[in-house]
Amino acid sequence: MHTDAPVLFLHAINLIGIFVFAVSGAMRGVRSQLDIFGIIVLAVVTAVFGGIVRDVLIGAIPPESIADWHSVALAVFAGVFVFFFHRFFDRLQHPVLLFDAAGLGVFAATGTQKALAFGLSPFMAAVLGVISGVGGGMVRDVLSGQVPVVLRAEIYASAAALGCVLVLAGDALRLPPLESTLAGAAL
Amino acid sequence: MHTDAPVLFLHAINLIGIFVFAVSGAMRGVRSQLDIFGIIVLAVVTAVFGGIVRDVLIGAIPPESIADWHSVALAVFAGVFVFFFHRFFDRLQHPVLLFDAAGLGVFAATGTQKALAFGLSPFMAAVLGVISGVGGGMVRDVLSGQVPVVLRAEIYASAAALGCVLVLAGDALRLPPLESTLAGAAL
Amino acid sequence: MHTDAPVLFLHAINLIGIFVFAVSGAMRGVRSQLDIFGIIVLAVVTAVFGGIVRDVLIGAIPPESIADWHSVALAVFAGVFVFFFHRFFDRLQHPVLLFDAAGLGVFAATGTQKALAFGLSPFMAAVLGVISGVGGGMVRDVLSGQVPVVLRAEIYASAAALGCVLVLAGDALRLPPLESTLAGAAL
Repeated sequence: MHTDAPVLFLHAINLIGIFVFAVSGAMRGVRSQLDIFGIIVLAVVTAVFGGIVRDVLIGAIPPESIADWHSVALAVFAGVFVFFFHRFFDRLQHPVLLFDAAGLGVFAATGTQKALAFGLSPFMAAVLGVISGVGGGMVRDVLSGQVPVVLRAEIYASAAALGCVLVLAGDALRLPPLESTLAGAAL
Repeated sequence: MHTDAPVLFLHAINLIGIFVFAVSGAMRGVRSQLDIFGIIVLAVVTAVFGGIVRDVLIGAIPPESIADWHSVALAVFAGVFVFFFHRFFDRLQHPVLLFDAAGLGVFAATGTQKALAFGLSPFMAAVLGVISGVGGGMVRDVLSGQVPVVLRAEIYASAAALGCVLVLAGDALRLPPLESTLAGAAL
Repeated sequence: MHTDAPVLFLHAINLIGIFVFAVSGAMRGVRSQLDIFGIIVLAVVTAVFGGIVRDVLIGAIPPESIADWHSVALAVFAGVFVFFFHRFFDRLQHPVLLFDAAGLGVFAATGTQKALAFGLSPFMAAVLGVISGVGGGMVRDVLSGQVPVVLRAEIYASAAALGCVLVLAGDALRLPPLESTLAGAAL
């Protein structure tokens, strides 16, 4: 990996994905009346699970979130933040789903990009993108005793799949990774 | 891997296992009144989870179902097929369990075989075979909010264990892998 | 790895962790009225899951419990033992939690130690220690249809985190791994 501007930018986008997923997990913890430790665990697991599964499956071991402490530290911070200031998020209609959808878009795009970089075929790269995007939310739902929302709400996975396809289209057209990943995430 | 006839035949058997597991997952999705996307996700996860866990644990990374798009594509197809034609399967008494048992026999046998080929001891190869066979159904059940059927119904795991032992016996007797795997799967 | 006395001792401690986790899983199986096979599956999964996740994430593939048959065989034995003699454990107030806490302390300490040995930063080594310690119990709870106790009972994860910190402190002070791991596990 070069540490030039686009890569740093992708890294920043990824941290945004980590943060919003962590908020989504922490808000579920608040709703389930967990104590602060339970909230932090749900925040961290929701934030890093999808990316870790992706990295293990493409052979990027140790996974990004394990080799480097930034992701876990950020997710712990998000969990503590939500524990103290969840009233702020309570005003939102569906805070868990809202932040979940944001994280899903980001991770589906960056996950597809990373799988392509590891030599997977476009179809499997898109599958890995979807796994990155929906994995964290699935584990969050299973751990809190619910059927995963992604199984019930078509809109979620469709959004993820579309994001992946957009990244693939950008790749096929030889667009720079940065721009196509951004477009995929925005979707 | 040589691409001679026996290997191709094992590959074909494996695809049959993928297909029946995918049908089992998709039928559960239909019963849980999921939308088409939820059905496809359950079909794919049920079909590939056991094999992916096996491959990660024996160090075959990226796993077969990730390196190659055939398994996922077949499972997606099975999910779509069940979505449109599930009335056909509805006539069967316990469609989820029936297809689960078929997939379990196939995967327990091929999983044991593959673990042996990666140098595991016979005992651990049989354990990996059981994991390959029951992993997909366990995740299907957890995701749809049920206690895994394998924990409740002795017959399942016993069948898987017996299949593995048969493959090991064939291996010990220096029988060709193909025949002993077939015998294990048939059981 | 040298096979000198401290390493053998750590291996012995690890087997104690495997055994108590297996008892915790098997007791849950008894409480959920599973048959003997379900009890054995819960015992094995509870005993080895945390360590397997740790090993995959730090790149120790195949994981210890897969490369070597001792852990799985011990967990199977514990499951059979509990099936026949669970009346003995029934006298204890909270047998699942008691054995869970014991295993958690052991695995948090040895997991942190192992992650350090694989070159992870102290912070991430502690995270891996917590994963090793709480992973098995989480899966046991999810498979038996309960919200993981670690999400609800602050005391558990706090104990794991403290154990990890103690190991790290010992490591920072250049104490021999054996002594600091023991101290961490005792806590």
